[in-house]
Order: sequence, then C-alpha cells, then structure tokens
Amino acid sequence: MKVGFIGLGRMGSGMARNLLRAGHDITVYNRTPERSQALAADGAKVAATVAQACRVDALITMLANDAAAEDVVLGPDGIVSHLQPGALHISSSTISVALARRLAEAHRANQQQFVSAPVFGRPDAAAAARLYILLAGDPAAREAAMPLLNVLGQRTFVVSDKPEAANLGKLSGNFLSASVIESLGEALALVSHGGLDPAAYIDFLTATMFGAPVYRTYGPLIAQRRFEPAAFAAGLGAKDIRLLLGAAQDLRVPMPLASLLNDRFLRLLASGGEHLDWSALGDLAARDAGGQPVAGPTPPIYSF
Amino acid sequence: MKVGFIGLGRMGSGMARNLLRAGHDITVYNRTPERSQALAADGAKVAATVAQACRVDALITMLANDAAAEDVVLGPDGIVSHLQPGALHISSSTISVALARRLAEAHRANQQQFVSAPVFGRPDAAAAARLYILLAGDPAAREAAMPLLNVLGQRTFVVSDKPEAANLGKLSGNFLSASVIESLGEALALVSHGGLDPAAYIDFLTATMFGAPVYRTYGPLIAQRRFEPAAFAAGLGAKDIRLLLGAAQDLRVPMPLASLLNDRFLRLLASGGEHLDWSALGDLAARDAGGQPVAGPTPPIYSF
Amino acid sequence: MKVGFIGLGRMGSGMARNLLRAGHDITVYNRTPERSQALAADGAKVAATVAQACRVDALITMLANDAAAEDVVLGPDGIVSHLQPGALHISSSTISVALARRLAEAHRANQQQFVSAPVFGRPDAAAAARLYILLAGDPAAREAAMPLLNVLGQRTFVVSDKPEAANLGKLSGNFLSASVIESLGEALALVSHGGLDPAAYIDFLTATMFGAPVYRTYGPLIAQRRFEPAAFAAGLGAKDIRLLLGAAQDLRVPMPLASLLNDRFLRLLASGGEHLDWSALGDLAARDAGGQPVAGPTPPIYSF
Amino acid sequence: MKVGFIGLGRMGSGMARNLLRAGHDITVYNRTPERSQALAADGAKVAATVAQACRVDALITMLANDAAAEDVVLGPDGIVSHLQPGALHISSSTISVALARRLAEAHRANQQQFVSAPVFGRPDAAAAARLYILLAGDPAAREAAMPLLNVLGQRTFVVSDKPEAANLGKLSGNFLSASVIESLGEALALVSHGGLDPAAYIDFLTATMFGAPVYRTYGPLIAQRRFEPAAFAAGLGAKDIRLLLGAAQDLRVPMPLASLLNDRFLRLLASGGEHLDWSALGDLAARDAGGQPVAGPTPPIYSF
Repeated sequence: MKVGFIGLGRMGSGMARNLLRAGHDITVYNRTPERSQALAADGAKVAATVAQACRVDALITMLANDAAAEDVVLGPDGIVSHLQPGALHISSSTISVALARRLAEAHRANQQQFVSAPVFGRPDAAAAARLYILLAGDPAAREAAMPLLNVLGQRTFVVSDKPEAANLGKLSGNFLSASVIESLGEALALVSHGGLDPAAYIDFLTATMFGAPVYRTYGPLIAQRRFEPAAFAAGLGAKDIRLLLGAAQDLRVPMPLASLLNDRFLRLLASGGEHLDWSALGDLAARDAGGQPVAGPTPPIYSF
Repeated sequence: MKVGFIGLGRMGSGMARNLLRAGHDITVYNRTPERSQALAADGAKVAATVAQACRVDALITMLANDAAAEDVVLGPDGIVSHLQPGALHISSSTISVALARRLAEAHRANQQQFVSAPVFGRPDAAAAARLYILLAGDPAAREAAMPLLNVLGQRTFVVSDKPEAANLGKLSGNFLSASVIESLGEALALVSHGGLDPAAYIDFLTATMFGAPVYRTYGPLIAQRRFEPAAFAAGLGAKDIRLLLGAAQDLRVPMPLASLLNDRFLRLLASGGEHLDWSALGDLAARDAGGQPVAGPTPPIYSF
Repeated sequence: MKVGFIGLGRMGSGMARNLLRAGHDITVYNRTPERSQALAADGAKVAATVAQACRVDALITMLANDAAAEDVVLGPDGIVSHLQPGALHISSSTISVALARRLAEAHRANQQQFVSAPVFGRPDAAAAARLYILLAGDPAAREAAMPLLNVLGQRTFVVSDKPEAANLGKLSGNFLSASVIESLGEALALVSHGGLDPAAYIDFLTATMFGAPVYRTYGPLIAQRRFEPAAFAAGLGAKDIRLLLGAAQDLRVPMPLASLLNDRFLRLLASGGEHLDWSALGDLAARDAGGQPVAGPTPPIYSF
Repeated sequence: MKVGFIGLGRMGSGMARNLLRAGHDITVYNRTPERSQALAADGAKVAATVAQACRVDALITMLANDAAAEDVVLGPDGIVSHLQPGALHISSSTISVALARRLAEAHRANQQQFVSAPVFGRPDAAAAARLYILLAGDPAAREAAMPLLNVLGQRTFVVSDKPEAANLGKLSGNFLSASVIESLGEALALVSHGGLDPAAYIDFLTATMFGAPVYRTYGPLIAQRRFEPAAFAAGLGAKDIRLLLGAAQDLRVPMPLASLLNDRFLRLLASGGEHLDWSALGDLAARDAGGQPVAGPTPPIYSF
C-alpha cells in the first residue's frame, strides 16, 4: 500500500519506521528535511513538498500543533488541495476539536476520506508500536484505516462516527494524566514534609490502588525531581490543556481542575520550564511548600 | 493471643471476624451494643465497657472520627487509663495527624505501646482480609503488631517510626482517590457533551494508562451515576479531606487541588449528599454543565 | 464634524444620541435597521451599509463581540476598505487584545488613524455621558479622538501608545468587577448562614472600606437576588472573562481567580443564565451552600 | 468609668490610649509588661495579673489569636473566673466564631455580660479613633458597650444578638479585603505584562468604579511592591482566612475564592513572608508570571 507520512518528530519518526517494517511503500515529508534522511536510510522515499507526499492511497499526519496542521492540511499547497478523491487522510496529531471539525468538513467537500486517530504513548511506545489509538470517523474510512493503525499501536478504540470526538477523547486523556501529575505533586509535597519517604510512598501507591502505568511513570519522576530529558515537553502539555479548555468552553462544561492545571502550566512556562518533561508540573507544589523539607536522619522505610 | 477490638462499624466488624477466624481470643466493644451481638454469635466475648476491652495483650480500635477516638482513648474511662503497661494499642481509625500525635504521647507517658495502622479498602475488602495497611511506630511496637495486621490485610507497608506519619499517608491516599473521582467527573462531563459514550470511554481508560483499581472502581460508578448504596459515604470522605487540609495547614503545604475537593465536598453535603457514596463528588461537574447532554442516536461504540 | 456611528445596542444608542446633542453631524448604521430609526427621529442620518457610514471624518464602532467587529472592520465591505486615508476610527467595543492589534495593523497599512477607546459604565451611564474611557493609540490619533470622547464620557484616561493596551485595561477592569461579584457572593452566603442580614452587611461594607460604586452597585443586587432585567448580561461578562484569559495565556500570566470566574460563568450559562445580569454569578455561592438559610426571627439590624 | 484593657499590641495600645484621653479610669494588662509602661506614662494603672485587670465595670480584650484569647478568658486564672457578675467583657480580638460562641456561653453561665466588638482599621486608625466596629450581643450588653466603643471608633454597626455573628462579619470583611488584594495582584501582573503602567492603572481604577479605601490602600502597595513595614502582617491575615474557612466548613458554605486565598497565604508563609504586609499576597501573581516584564521605554501615561 502506498502510504504518505508527514511530520517526523520524535513520535512520527517511530511510527513511520514501523510502517516501513511492515512492508508498506512509504513516502515521508518533514518541514526540516534532515529528519527525512534518517527514514530514507531505512527505505522511505522522501517528498520535497506536501503535494508529493499526497500521491498515495493513505496519508498519515503527525504534526506538532494546530498552526502546523492547519497549514499542511488547509494551506494553499496543502493536503486538501492535492490528495486524490477517495484517498484517506489519517490525522494523528493532537489538535483542537474545532480544527479537527474543519479538517473533516474540508475533506468531505473534496470527496476525500478522513479519520482522526490520535495516539497515546511516549516516543518509546511509538517506536515499539505499543501506542494506544482512539479512532473516529465514517465507518468506511475507519475500516480503511485499521490495517495501518494495527501496525502503529497495540490497540485501537473506536469512539465515534464524528472524527473530532477522537480528538476530544485524546485531550481528555491528557487532562487525566496531568491531573495525576498534579495530585501526586501535592501528595508528595505533603507526605515528605510530614516525615515519609517520597519514593517509598510511591512504591506503596503503585503496589495497591494506584497500580497503573500513569502512576508508575510519573510517581518516580516527581519523587526524584527528574524532569530532563523530556519525554513529553511541558510546552506540549500546556498546549493540550489549553485546547481542552477551548473545547470545554465551546461545550460549556466548567472544569475547575483543568483550570488549575492550566494556571500551573502557564507558571511553569513563565519560569522557563517549557522544555522540561511535563511531569515538572508536579514539582510546583513542593516549591510552594518552601522546597524540600529539612531532612533529619532518614527513617528506615521498608515493607513486608 | 488476647485481643480487644473497639469499633464494630462496617469496616471493624469484618476485621474483628477475621481475627476470630484466625483463632485469637477476641473481646469486642461497641458503643451501641447491638453490633457486638453479631460478633458474639461468632465466638467473641462482649465487653460492657471500654475498660473491660482493655484486659488484653493488644487492642485494636477502628472508630469513625476524631471525636470518638479522643473519647475512647483519652477520655476519663478510656484506653490510656486502663490498658496495662507494655500492652499494645493499634489505632486503625482514620483520624487527624494531630490527634494521632496526642495518642502517641499519652501512651508513651503510660508505658503502653502504640502504633498507627490505618487501612485502605472498602468493607468487602475488610471482610475478605484484603486490606492494605500503613504502619508506623516504634520498631518494637511494629513488630508486635505485625502478626495481627497480617490477619487483617493482604499487605502492610511500614512508613515511619512516628505513628502519626501513617495517618498522614492514609489521608493523602484518600486525597489521591478523591482527585481521581474529580478528574473522572470532569472528563466524563466533557466527553459526554462532545458525543462520546461515557461507559466506553471508561473502558478505554482502564484498558490502557489508567488500569488501576481506583479507576476501575470509580469510573463506572460515575459514568452510570450509581451512588447508592454508599460503600464509603461522602460525609466520611469530606471529613478526611478536611483532616488532610488541617495537616497541610500545620505543615504549610498549599494544596490547591485538595482545596477544590474540599469545596466540592461541602457543596455535596449542603445539597443533601452526605449519605451518598463519595464518588458522587464526580457528578458535580456534570451538574455544572447543565446535566446530561441531549442524546442523539447512540453511536456504535466498540473496540478492536 | 462628520461622525459615523456603527453599533446601536443599548450602549451605542445612548452614545450616539449624546453626539447628536453636542451638535455633530451623525450618520448611524446598525445591522438590524429598526434601531437606526430611533436615532433618525433625533436627527441622525441613516446609512444603509457600512460603506455609507464611512464617509466621515471620524467613525465610532460599538459592537457586541469579536465576530461582529472583525466582520464590520476587516470584512470585504468593511471599514478598512471604505474609510478615507487620514480619517479616524475609534473602536469602543470590548474586543480581544489580539483582534485590536489586527485592527491597528490593518488601519496602519491603509493610512487610516485608529485608537482603542473602550468604555466603563452601564447603559444608564452611556445615556448620561457619564462613561469612563480608556484611550490608547498614536498621540495624533488620540488628540483627534479627544473632543468626541469628551462628549461621551466624564473622563478619559490615556494608557498607552499601543491601541490594544486599552483593550487589555478594559478586560482587566471587568475582571476586577467580576472578582467583586464573586467575593460578595461568597461573603453573603457565609454571613447569611451565620445569622447576619445580608442587606445590613452590605450597608456596613459600603459605608466603610468598600465604599466604591462597584460594591454599591452589585452588593444590593446579590443580597436581594435581583438579576433581571440585566444591565450587563452574563453572556457578555462570560465573553469578557474568556477574552481576558486568552490575553493572559498569550502573555503567560497565570490568573487563578480569573479561572475561577470563568468556570463560574460557564456554569451560569449552562444553567440557562445567559440573559441574567452578570451579578447572578454572585448567587452561585448561595446555591452551593444549599440555598437560603432557614430564617429565624429576623434580628433587629441597625447602626449608630 | 473603671475600665480594664488586656492586650497592648499595635492595635490595643492606641485603643487604650484613646480611652485614657476620654477620661476613663484605665487599668491595663499585657503578657510582656514592657508595653504596659508606655501606657502607665500616659496615666494608666498597670495590673500585674489578669485578675487585677478584672476589678472593673467593663473590660476590653484585644488579643492576637484564639490561643491567647482562650487562655486569658477561659484559663484557670482568666477573666471568666475573676470578672464580677454583671460586669461587661467587650471582646475586640479577631478570633474564631467557635471560640466566640464558647466565650459567650461561659460568661452567660457566670452572669457576666459579653459582647463581641471586632474592629476594622490598621494601627494608625486605632490611634486616631477612626476604627469601624461590628457589635453583637444582648441588647443590654450592647447598650453598655456603646459609650466605650464610641471613644474607640468612628462608627459602630450592630449586626446581631448573637455575639459570634460579629466575629463572622469581621472575618468576612478581611476575606473581602484579601480578595481585593488577590484580584489587584492578578490584574496588575497582567496589564504590566501587556504594556500598561501599574501605577497609572491604579490611578484609573481608584478614580472610577473602584474608588474605595481598600483599593486606594492596597493598589499602590502592590504596584510598588512595598510590603515592609507591615501594617497588618501576612501571618495574621493567614490566620484570619483559616478561621474564616473553619467557620465556612462548620456552616457548610463552600468558598472557592477563600480557598484560593488560603493556599496563597500558605505559600507566602512557606517562602518566609510571614512578617511582610499581607498585601504581599498580591505579589504572587507577578512571581508566577516570571517576575517583572522587561520594560521598553516607558510610555507616557497621563490622564485628561
């Protein structure tokens, strides 16, 4: 199958490589061409323009934000102008609900197929084809997308006939993850000031009621204050919460916890934290408590 | 071993029964004596006063709140006055950090042993001896407590030499659970207004990054708005968040998410929700969004 | 002086009438023409199109929101296309900072003068020429605008050379007013539940440290729960807080109180309150407290 | 009239001196006796114990917090034990609603008269007898208190027959002031980042809708970041908000803005700000925005 792939960031590169491995005929495009060369070495064709990448049966986009997606898809030399009628565009970018709706409308007007298929997972999961994928769109388009999505992720969840609903589900998932980061940050600031060892407390949590990947991933990062290198940068997390709040405003759903997260992210960015891992959000509670507590002799912490 | 047990609520009854089954010689006391009779039928001796329940090697208390614990332990005819020197008091009640510290000081002044051993789990877990237990206190007292705790729970985590640290860890754990409830409430209000099926969305979450008991327990309750009967009443949850904030104030740790939860609980109580399950907190976001969205034809939601 | 006036809502009608009274040669335009007729009866000329209203020395716009302002100013048959070089556009609409910047750039590119001059005051103040006005723009344009603004308001404050700074100041002023509404709402819910008479408490406040128009206006409205008819509708207030948060995001200024207000407004709108006066925001605290307290015999409240 | 006065802090000293000036026969007591000497030089008798200060017709207390008031009033050698039946205790301390209720009950049980009369104003207002006073209690006790209160303040407002209602009104007033501080802090952080001069913006606000003492007092302090010396220390403000939230909890009134203020105060204290003026709360928003904006050439800011 001839497949185009636009957007070779840390997520997209791994995804494109998995498609190559699965034997697909892949044409890649990236705004900064250096990133395309690494894929070329693995057998990908390199497109010099978006238009060239559109000469395919299916085209996947994995772009950084709304501005990039709007430009690449709706711009004067964009995907909508060049994709063949009947061909499929799979949008995996984390973009706004409003833009996803506009992309769907533009493709429909041009007789192109379109699904939203945002992904969950960090770059290592993308490389290992262990992503989770939310899929929404017309049943026929969804069916056409599934073979490719099966190559990219470990499981795909169909959530709606409306493409933009998948984008809402994606943003909401990131909101839930950021909520975990904030709650862990507050809890760890508290218990460490009360004489418990943060790492031991995380062990307890993840061995019991909170034994999920999101706690196992972020708990130790926050407890150890290890925010570099970023697997998912705070700047991107901030963007997602802003998009979530935009959708919530449009739907008139008050989300006070999301508002709290948004203010936390703005503060993290204003203090120069844009390039830290977004779990650095969980360090603000400790800062507000005056930093690390003065440690007495560490109590022996162990479990039976 | 001669063991006393005071406090035969829904949690305590199950715990005391497990001690009976393990062959211990159990004397129970409850303020309202009816509850003692059920245990007597299973072989427990029934004490008519707190003092009678103190004629034991170890005494476990599982009381509803600070007022009850202060009265039973520190009151004129309380445990501190009647427990033998060298005997052990295991306090499993969810009480304030400040009161736990006072209990520890009083027992120390009377040469009695004391540990805090608050538990995690709902009544069914107490009945099945599947509780998780946090344990803190002097090493010798902890060692004395372990055989009994092993009967009550599936795993005990030692977190500190200071008894009250275990209470802080307990309150913090409940804070984390309530944070999950609030975040799920907001996320479900949003996605349901955006056209996703709440139940299907919960399936997605718990099959992926959020596959922990806390999400599997509360997600469906919130999605289905099923808040009765209460496994853990909102009134008790509200009390715990208030105790958490009290400890946070004393330690000067700002916790904005805990403050949000506290205001949510006050509102739930003020609207008559005291006896609902505390997951009803997660329904406030939907109320704020104007209730359930007007449903169109339900989209087919399924996963591959 | 030949002056155009576009936007004859409750604010704009009063403003245009004051210009007529001051002897100016006024041409009015409104999207729904009925409103123009009332002004025609007072001596205004009526334009059938935006373009006709642009044949003037100075043009004032007072439009409801960004969409209207963008359409009227930047649209294909808009002001930028029809105003003469050197003529002045005074934008008094409460619009976003980002749009104000775009308007300024478009006028500059077309050699037209432009100032932002948003106003403070409710419709009765507009009718009585008692508005307060923030003014920003090039010094020459500001000087040209002053004689007209002196007719519309009681005082004009120059705040910057950059037009959009006046819009930020306007949104910030509305934020401060909404903050007063929220704080009064919470305080009145509290004291009324504690046995004080809300109206008497407002009397105390406004006679002492809080003796400002904003407290004297909103205090009694909230205490008496009198939210109709709206002098300033909740839907407009909600819009302004959203615009404020948009500007705050762009400037990376976290504003947790503004976030709280935004969530309150969303809730008010979702419960059907869009057309109530925006002081209805101050009723949510009372609702959250379970409504009005059960009143005992009213205590005699008086002051010396 | 023989009047006792206990508590000679910065507020109490000025109040006691005004009573001396009015010709009353004053006996003062302070825990640290140095402060009494200054009053002795002005003609006051100095009591060596609380009991000695109780040999009066009326006794005024102005103490720092609940612990001091509980000790001085209810302690073993306290006021309740020594004041004559029929004598009057005027409690002007800012204390909790719950403690005020207990004081009232204890005095009632001992046939002593009791009113709560908390005051509004900073030390300079106390010295100048310009305080505002809230008064609550039995009508007869209120009548007995009025001549003394008229010496201390510029105006007294009777708010209830229940003494503790005045304390609630006092805490609520401080909440409203702290709300102004927070809102000004956020607004000034925003407009200064958007190119407006903070001082000029304060001038605009206080000349228009926000022309009240609370804005005129705190606006310039925040705009100029002038938080020392403290007229009212952050530690005291923090205490009052905590007492307010305690009362709100007991009455089940959710107050999200008060919760925000509480978290802000905790953070201010944890960063060492306890002894700054409480208006330093208004600086946190600027800190969160990354500090002062980089200033370009200051725009000329003036008003017509």
